[in-house]
Amino acid sequence: MRKISESTVTRLSQYYRILNDLIENNVETVSSSEIAQINSITAAQVRKDLSFFGSFGKRGLGYKTRELKETIAGILGLHKKWNVALVGFGNIGRALLLYDEFKKQGFYIQAIFEVDENKIGSTIHGVDILHVNDAPQVLLSKEIEIIIIAVPAKSAQKVIDFFVGLGIKAFLNFASTSIHVPKGVIVKNENMSIELEALTYFLTNK
Amino acid sequence: MRKISESTVTRLSQYYRILNDLIENNVETVSSSEIAQINSITAAQVRKDLSFFGSFGKRGLGYKTRELKETIAGILGLHKKWNVALVGFGNIGRALLLYDEFKKQGFYIQAIFEVDENKIGSTIHGVDILHVNDAPQVLLSKEIEIIIIAVPAKSAQKVIDFFVGLGIKAFLNFASTSIHVPKGVIVKNENMSIELEALTYFLTNK
Repeated sequence: MRKISESTVTRLSQYYRILNDLIENNVETVSSSEIAQINSITAAQVRKDLSFFGSFGKRGLGYKTRELKETIAGILGLHKKWNVALVGFGNIGRALLLYDEFKKQGFYIQAIFEVDENKIGSTIHGVDILHVNDAPQVLLSKEIEIIIIAVPAKSAQKVIDFFVGLGIKAFLNFASTSIHVPKGVIVKNENMSIELEALTYFLTNK
Repeated sequence: MRKISESTVTRLSQYYRILNDLIENNVETVSSSEIAQINSITAAQVRKDLSFFGSFGKRGLGYKTRELKETIAGILGLHKKWNVALVGFGNIGRALLLYDEFKKQGFYIQAIFEVDENKIGSTIHGVDILHVNDAPQVLLSKEIEIIIIAVPAKSAQKVIDFFVGLGIKAFLNFASTSIHVPKGVIVKNENMSIELEALTYFLTNK
């Protein structure tokens, strides 16, 4: 398969959610312009994105919602359950543990790692808070492939280096600091103030 | 000024953070390839993004970090303080109230709106939790221009419609559902599971 851009992957995730909604509402086919309208992009972009993966739609008939949803799920790797560990159990970590969307999409937080002795040893919503030193065994036994970083910015690089050393290749990082990782490892940075800046750009330049 | 794409705006926010870090470390000039390296994109992309706004860099000399930072701040509308209201004070709302990055970038949560009578009337970290019915007066008196939506998915559209009716033009939405707004209003959707899907795409197709 051709390598596709990060923004295409993001749009596929959005199409996937739109298709989910349509299927829940018993809609069986959808056109690229309908997908585009919900997503506020162009129909041509939708067709281009989907054409990367072969031709699904029939001209004039649109896409079959279930078939397209399953294909996108396959591309995004959503046909399996993913085991995730959360590092850091402060305000953001706590909100993420309770974030319904993760489980809905097949992401299961299986362990929480901390260094705060007051938190270690508790079980919150069925998930144990463990010392980060236990990570080598726990990552293996729980088959964890993705780590969510919710530690203070000043510790983030050190924590990520530690988990890269244990063979983890994918991180979702909530700490707002530049992170360096070796080739073959991916870090997605989640910074809520960056999203707000897209709004202030709009408000300033409208 | 030419209209720039959403992804360019996001990259400008990233450059802004890189420049901030460099300035804190007393770095006075930076080349496009250095910015690119930190950001894992191409130097050509950095030059292209910055060229939208006139020519700052001198060939061979790079960009002056302070000057470039101030210019980007101006483009993104970060030279002023922005007053924000948070709607919904559940797990995500609570984490956002304590999210340091907002204040650091000039975003001030000035009010929290709720419908839960048990929460209304309290003051958390100096911010009052008010009934949503008080919004018309509070938005005016606190000069609120941006609303963060942290309500359940099933209420999100209704809540956004209400605030659009009160003249709000910019929303950051944490509820995972498709939102429709009239022209001239912008909604940025923050969905943490979409970021995870970029990781599972990578892990599946690497």
